[in-house]
Amino acid sequence: MTESSITDRDNALFEAGIKLGALYHQFTGSPVNLNTADSLEKAISESISVQPFVQSITVSIDRDMIRSGLNKEFGYCELEGRMLDVKLRVVYNDCNVLVALKYDTEMEYPLMKIEDVE
Amino acid sequence: MTESSITDRDNALFEAGIKLGALYHQFTGSPVNLNTADSLEKAISESISVQPFVQSITVSIDRDMIRSGLNKEFGYCELEGRMLDVKLRVVYNDCNVLVALKYDTEMEYPLMKIEDVE
Amino acid sequence: MTESSITDRDNALFEAGIKLGALYHQFTGSPVNLNTADSLEKAISESISVQPFVQSITVSIDRDMIRSGLNKEFGYCELEGRMLDVKLRVVYNDCNVLVALKYDTEMEYPLMKIEDVE
Amino acid sequence: MTESSITDRDNALFEAGIKLGALYHQFTGSPVNLNTADSLEKAISESISVQPFVQSITVSIDRDMIRSGLNKEFGYCELEGRMLDVKLRVVYNDCNVLVALKYDTEMEYPLMKIEDVE
Repeated sequence: MTESSITDRDNALFEAGIKLGALYHQFTGSPVNLNTADSLEKAISESISVQPFVQSITVSIDRDMIRSGLNKEFGYCELEGRMLDVKLRVVYNDCNVLVALKYDTEMEYPLMKIEDVE
Repeated sequence: MTESSITDRDNALFEAGIKLGALYHQFTGSPVNLNTADSLEKAISESISVQPFVQSITVSIDRDMIRSGLNKEFGYCELEGRMLDVKLRVVYNDCNVLVALKYDTEMEYPLMKIEDVE
Repeated sequence: MTESSITDRDNALFEAGIKLGALYHQFTGSPVNLNTADSLEKAISESISVQPFVQSITVSIDRDMIRSGLNKEFGYCELEGRMLDVKLRVVYNDCNVLVALKYDTEMEYPLMKIEDVE
Repeated sequence: MTESSITDRDNALFEAGIKLGALYHQFTGSPVNLNTADSLEKAISESISVQPFVQSITVSIDRDMIRSGLNKEFGYCELEGRMLDVKLRVVYNDCNVLVALKYDTEMEYPLMKIEDVE
């Protein structure tokens, strides 16, 4: 196989995967509570938005999961993957892809998924 | 030695160390550029502020180091420890301590240091 | 207060805190299962052991928590703070301190604690 | 577009990207020196190998970069993205892809790249 057989679509999806993996493993574990979730959402989305080929990103952290995860003694919890709802659009030349990270309750797994390819 | 011989001062300094170590290893590596440094500073300081015994924290990221670290191709860099200037105040019962993280140019090391104990 | 009033004991406990905070936020989130827990334990303890003032460290990851945390679909989980049992000895000049990270079931919290100061 | 138009090739490349992004942002920042690089390499490759769809992975950390990066005072450095040479094979149903992370000296960037699709 020659490298030229790698398409824009291939690269767009590869790059989109990189960003979701990066986001997840960079920011999960961050201490958070209901008062600080806003600034953490904003920092995560701005941080990932500077990476190559990112067109747009929205990040939201589930407030109910924070509330129920708060430590009784200390009043905070850690950002967990299952709390994240992320939509990310990546553009590689002519190819535009939409991918998502969202907790899948049936699989009990923070699932990353390709949502659309144009 | 019995546990009762551990003083508030001991615990305050131990807790202060925990926070600086946590901050450093949670957030270094985050993609950042000059447009997004503000939101990252805010998220870091709010995130660490929810941890036990933290009274106050200020976080600033060196803009000149970001500027000179920007990748030519992609226009961003990663948050590095040497870019961070952090002042953190921890209170444990009657003891109040001030610690700092700041790049030491002579040692070429992001140095964490006890600045004051009251 | 002058800087000279900071004691070796102060610095030993501050440094010990730094290491536990670093360990926690560097390595939690790592994918792990029962077959790979050994290599992760070894890497964590060796990694933290190269940091300044560390005399010795032992790291063990709770196998029962891994087992019960394994995702049904994919057969792995993430390293969580509550899975960690760490003993760390730090030496700063004449002061030797022992600190620990261990899940406190009553507080439902991965508690870091000063165990001994010599 | 219907979801069924997402191919195995799409998913294989998306999954491969996720793993490289995860690896990078989970493990960079880890303290390391020449004596501990082996255990860190092993832990990284074993950790990522438990993730979904990973067929095989090799991780090597550049010893010369560690050597030249060692802090003069303390004798260790942090794992940086540019030190990593990773080859990763992901299988999604009938599609097998090989991707890599390797420092690109011209771009001065730790480049992630699709190497082969079968």
